Amino acid sequence: MKIGILGQGKWGKTIKKLLAENGHEPFGFHHTDHPWEQQLDCLCIAIPVQHIRQTLLRFPNPECPVISLSKGLEITTGKRVTEIIKDVWKNENVGALSGPTFSEEISAGLPAAAVVASEKEALGIFFQNIFHSRTFRVYRTTDLVGVELGGALKNVYAIAGGLCYGLALGDNAHASLLTRSLAEMTRLGVTAGGKAETFFGLSGVGDLLLTASSMKSRNFRLGMRIASGIPLTKALSMESTVIEGYPTAFSVYKSALFSKQKKPVADEVYKILYEGKNIQASVMDLLRRQVGEED
Amino acid sequence: MKIGILGQGKWGKTIKKLLAENGHEPFGFHHTDHPWEQQLDCLCIAIPVQHIRQTLLRFPNPECPVISLSKGLEITTGKRVTEIIKDVWKNENVGALSGPTFSEEISAGLPAAAVVASEKEALGIFFQNIFHSRTFRVYRTTDLVGVELGGALKNVYAIAGGLCYGLALGDNAHASLLTRSLAEMTRLGVTAGGKAETFFGLSGVGDLLLTASSMKSRNFRLGMRIASGIPLTKALSMESTVIEGYPTAFSVYKSALFSKQKKPVADEVYKILYEGKNIQASVMDLLRRQVGEED
Repeated sequence: MKIGILGQGKWGKTIKKLLAENGHEPFGFHHTDHPWEQQLDCLCIAIPVQHIRQTLLRFPNPECPVISLSKGLEITTGKRVTEIIKDVWKNENVGALSGPTFSEEISAGLPAAAVVASEKEALGIFFQNIFHSRTFRVYRTTDLVGVELGGALKNVYAIAGGLCYGLALGDNAHASLLTRSLAEMTRLGVTAGGKAETFFGLSGVGDLLLTASSMKSRNFRLGMRIASGIPLTKALSMESTVIEGYPTAFSVYKSALFSKQKKPVADEVYKILYEGKNIQASVMDLLRRQVGEED
Repeated sequence: MKIGILGQGKWGKTIKKLLAENGHEPFGFHHTDHPWEQQLDCLCIAIPVQHIRQTLLRFPNPECPVISLSKGLEITTGKRVTEIIKDVWKNENVGALSGPTFSEEISAGLPAAAVVASEKEALGIFFQNIFHSRTFRVYRTTDLVGVELGGALKNVYAIAGGLCYGLALGDNAHASLLTRSLAEMTRLGVTAGGKAETFFGLSGVGDLLLTASSMKSRNFRLGMRIASGIPLTKALSMESTVIEGYPTAFSVYKSALFSKQKKPVADEVYKILYEGKNIQASVMDLLRRQVGEED
């Protein structure tokens, strides 16, 4: 199959290699390229979420199924990536790929597993067959909302995980913060129409525990750096690529949909990043919330 | 309050210190000590699970509430610790304390959170008040089965996590193995009468992700060592204290209750430990299970 990949960052290139190994003909497009001339059978979107809308506006609807490989929410609208695709292109054949997938390891041929989501069962099978391989195991679900929100929200909680490490609070504190983060992420996801069980799968807890525990994650590094005293602007500039959790934390905090939900971890991350709240005080607040039945 | 602690290993001593800081009068007992002479207000059990029954038989029922700090299942019967206490002492005022709690960090005064479980609400509050402190946050549940099974089963999955690291399969594979382990642990726990939500809390996913990702866990170290080629008998002898996941893996595999449940991760851990199955083949089998809807 002829498969376009819009976005040629690390993840886009990794997927391009994987698709070639699976016997497809992948075509990489930079966001500044001329639009596609050939007919594509499938298009992957792998650009930073805040640039997706303006990029899609430059390209015509490819008239083929489109799958999002990007994880985040649009800061101005709070929308998921497949919602942006539908908005701009009026293309309803959309899906998302998500899961615990550090690109370096996939490139190196190490085993990994991920999930494809599409609200249309047959389209889910189409996407699954494209990506699935001996070492890259792909599972399938129709819970598109749950999969996209898991991928977006975990970046916010990965910043929290990094804060906890940066303050040297230990592994116990980190594990309890992640447990709270999972509960919070599930609550927000269900509010938005996702299924709770999706958050207990690869694209939820799997991706969360990977990203929120590892220096290989840009979001985790951001949290760790600011907690160890590096000013935010400097910490942001230390990464050559976008830190998706940073705009997503803003979207979640400002979201009307989530405004009535208890989300103490995401709220503290927002206040640290956007209101300059003291990190030590903020994280200790989280760890000392009222005792009672566990929530 | 006068609180006895039966078992003076690392965890027993850590809890003794914490109780003293909370203003109680803790009394430590070795399993070989003479029985208590004074009236106790509460007793903590902190001995390796396989030695609990014979130790309790040496001591009279203390006629006070008894709380288990031990995590595992009795190899000969598959029973939980509070079931052993009820069997031997006919004491029905029992509970369990569990959660992501590496003892070194608690001793050092770093923040941590845990759960106390008792089927009796008032007894749960009694235990919660004993352990709760500014840095050691204690939550409460009536799901005793879920809390004890989470604590026991996660040691088996921690061995699996160690195997994955020992084979150098990468963080993606480790995250997907832990995701599967959580699903499996929840399924087994619910079969035994626990609540699914308990497994998504501190004593479930919280303890799992701590123990199954860290060289500070004896169970993780066992998996890592045997996967890197150290013979099992030598790896077992490298620890000065009991590796609870080793007998628990046996109990789970032989359990009539769990025999009809899908539990591929626990089964592979059993086969590696007790049947000498090839580790590489076994772990790769797990990572390559049939593709379809996620389970």
